[in-house]
Amino acid sequence: MSSKTAEVICIGTELLLGEITNTNAQYLAQQLAQLGICHYYQTVVGDNVSRIQKALAIAVGRSNLIITTGGLGPTADDLTTQTIAQFFDTPLEEDPQVWADIQAKFAGKEIPPSNRKQALLPRGATVLPNPTGTAPGMIWEPQPGLVIMTFPGVPSELYRMWEETAVPWLREHGWVSDPLWSRVLLYWGIGESALAERVADLLQLSQPTVAPYANYGQARLRITTRAKDHATAREIIQPIEAEILRRTGEYCYGFDDDTLELVVGRHLRTQGQTLAIAESCTGGWLGEMITSVPGCSDYFLGGVIAYSNDVKVELLGVSPRDLAEYGAVSGVVAEQMAGGVKQKLGADWGISITGIAGPGGGSEKKPVGLVYIGLASPIGTVESFEYRFSPSKDRNWIRRVSACSALNHLRERFVMMQNT
Amino acid sequence: MSSKTAEVICIGTELLLGEITNTNAQYLAQQLAQLGICHYYQTVVGDNVSRIQKALAIAVGRSNLIITTGGLGPTADDLTTQTIAQFFDTPLEEDPQVWADIQAKFAGKEIPPSNRKQALLPRGATVLPNPTGTAPGMIWEPQPGLVIMTFPGVPSELYRMWEETAVPWLREHGWVSDPLWSRVLLYWGIGESALAERVADLLQLSQPTVAPYANYGQARLRITTRAKDHATAREIIQPIEAEILRRTGEYCYGFDDDTLELVVGRHLRTQGQTLAIAESCTGGWLGEMITSVPGCSDYFLGGVIAYSNDVKVELLGVSPRDLAEYGAVSGVVAEQMAGGVKQKLGADWGISITGIAGPGGGSEKKPVGLVYIGLASPIGTVESFEYRFSPSKDRNWIRRVSACSALNHLRERFVMMQNT
Repeated sequence: MSSKTAEVICIGTELLLGEITNTNAQYLAQQLAQLGICHYYQTVVGDNVSRIQKALAIAVGRSNLIITTGGLGPTADDLTTQTIAQFFDTPLEEDPQVWADIQAKFAGKEIPPSNRKQALLPRGATVLPNPTGTAPGMIWEPQPGLVIMTFPGVPSELYRMWEETAVPWLREHGWVSDPLWSRVLLYWGIGESALAERVADLLQLSQPTVAPYANYGQARLRITTRAKDHATAREIIQPIEAEILRRTGEYCYGFDDDTLELVVGRHLRTQGQTLAIAESCTGGWLGEMITSVPGCSDYFLGGVIAYSNDVKVELLGVSPRDLAEYGAVSGVVAEQMAGGVKQKLGADWGISITGIAGPGGGSEKKPVGLVYIGLASPIGTVESFEYRFSPSKDRNWIRRVSACSALNHLRERFVMMQNT
Repeated sequence: MSSKTAEVICIGTELLLGEITNTNAQYLAQQLAQLGICHYYQTVVGDNVSRIQKALAIAVGRSNLIITTGGLGPTADDLTTQTIAQFFDTPLEEDPQVWADIQAKFAGKEIPPSNRKQALLPRGATVLPNPTGTAPGMIWEPQPGLVIMTFPGVPSELYRMWEETAVPWLREHGWVSDPLWSRVLLYWGIGESALAERVADLLQLSQPTVAPYANYGQARLRITTRAKDHATAREIIQPIEAEILRRTGEYCYGFDDDTLELVVGRHLRTQGQTLAIAESCTGGWLGEMITSVPGCSDYFLGGVIAYSNDVKVELLGVSPRDLAEYGAVSGVVAEQMAGGVKQKLGADWGISITGIAGPGGGSEKKPVGLVYIGLASPIGTVESFEYRFSPSKDRNWIRRVSACSALNHLRERFVMMQNT
């Protein structure tokens, strides 16, 4: 065990029943990482004296900052404070300041006896004020080298108590060392394993570390280091980032909080060009992504959700004969949809998506997962791209990855133009 | 320790860094509760052999079903299988079936050597198939009275593996006792507190229990009981459900896994009617929701994403004079959009949404959060509805709640028709 490690214990039967998502654990994890405090374990335990005590015994043996959430309320199943006091064999005492605060918050209204319980703290503990609720927490050093901080389970109350009192306390008491800094490289069109193989040697590094992640067709590499400030972190990260980009740059579409829709939007804005879209199987998902970016009206004109064949013909000018001959899910129709929406809306670029997202509607020749993306360019060229996603992927996976792939084709065109 | 208790260990440094929310822990918690399997502890630990082993040692001492998530991928920091094997001093062996499956999934493409690692299982373990990814899990009884199940960290893969293989296994092996049964009532157009007040006395019940939840404008009441079978559960739940509906039924749009898009789709299908949509600020989100329902092509024709004013005029026939006089965000324009798209696509119903989703674009007269929804009916009437959402809500909240509100207006028309 390194000399200073934190551990999070979330207390609440509702967590063990899956009634709520444990966002407090994630928040505290992010905060501890940002402050450079090591944090190796999180535990969730129910509202039960014996099991809370067992979890405490384990935590005391391996960590020296124990942060609890939950169990500070007024009801009978809120057991955190009394259980911690009992574990360290320390009596509870009413804190006059906390009791005065509770009285003030009730502003003359009758105070339920259960709320008076919230003024009890183990002897020697300091109150951790809760400016927005009735349940304060505590900061307590029950034995040398061990600090316990308790917080309520209500996220908004926890956040404020953490930021206003716990963080300053941790800084004053020498807990905050160099924070973690990260740079995330975002990829489209390459899988996690293929990406990891290209940088296999770099995944072994310890300063900075490099780690791969993936979800929904997107792979990411995260470069992380501990450093005293951003400039120092950049110096450590930059050479590794450059080396990674040298090996994988053609698939890298952005960094950190970038998204495909943000990157494509930036290109369109820089070029002063506009975009229109025609969606069949994605049904509006591509439009939803593009318009999630504030200010996208500068370059996004709109589009057509061409779910039925009639709409493809009437609004986009797709040829009924080609629809009959090649089918709605075909490169020919994708190209006519992209060209049609570009022309109809007077845009510089047109993108289209048509495919079979399943679970029904597939055939031997045109299985679930078959998707065509069309791209019409400002100079009048029209192309299409065929995708054959695994039919084991579900409807929404296929739809989402299709929408992202469509954006990526447009992005690649801008990159090609920059490089020529 | 009761004779059969489960424990969840989530493995992944990204959890300890707070990079992702631990939704897997919540999912497994819900599932265990549903099956009536006791579950007293959850642990999160990083990708570190020694700490994974320590967490295992603790879990083995207090639980007899250990469920792990994460660490099954192909990369070097995926350590779960080998660490568990090592902990129980058991060699790893390549499972020929898993290796064949991986080869099949790569379908002739070159397989990175790191993927071959995923075919290794401890001797004696059974593969837990992963139909949608390359990382299978395992079910293993390393010592009498102890079962270990491993799952990948990707939620969609975990869900399917849990439902298709783990749950049947647990049933066959006597793990499942009287399960929890729930009935969820879904509401639109009433807030959580207003709903809770109407049923305040019922929230005190213990058999069944009634609990309110809310997110993104949707409120829910969950009625829960433990019972040996569905019929017994229905007997306990039904009278309470009836009483709740007596008090709140006008806002209840559905039950359990219903969504507004499913319910509206069912009405359209029953009536043999079709729908077309015109979206401005939602940019396709409403279409995405409607088309998330398989088979929606039976009633959904498509729509127009009328982001720019030109598209509103050209494709939907909105009057340029009204656009200039009332503005794009107005009841007049919403009505013309709904009527226009209904006519243009030859649908029975037309829905439109136009609004200011922010963060920019607001003014004193037309603040962020102002949204108009238009509804054109089969008999030719056209209406609009004004919403003033709090500007403290973010862009995506306003867009999502607008799309849901639009669906709810259509749903209400069907309910009115049924009642007359």
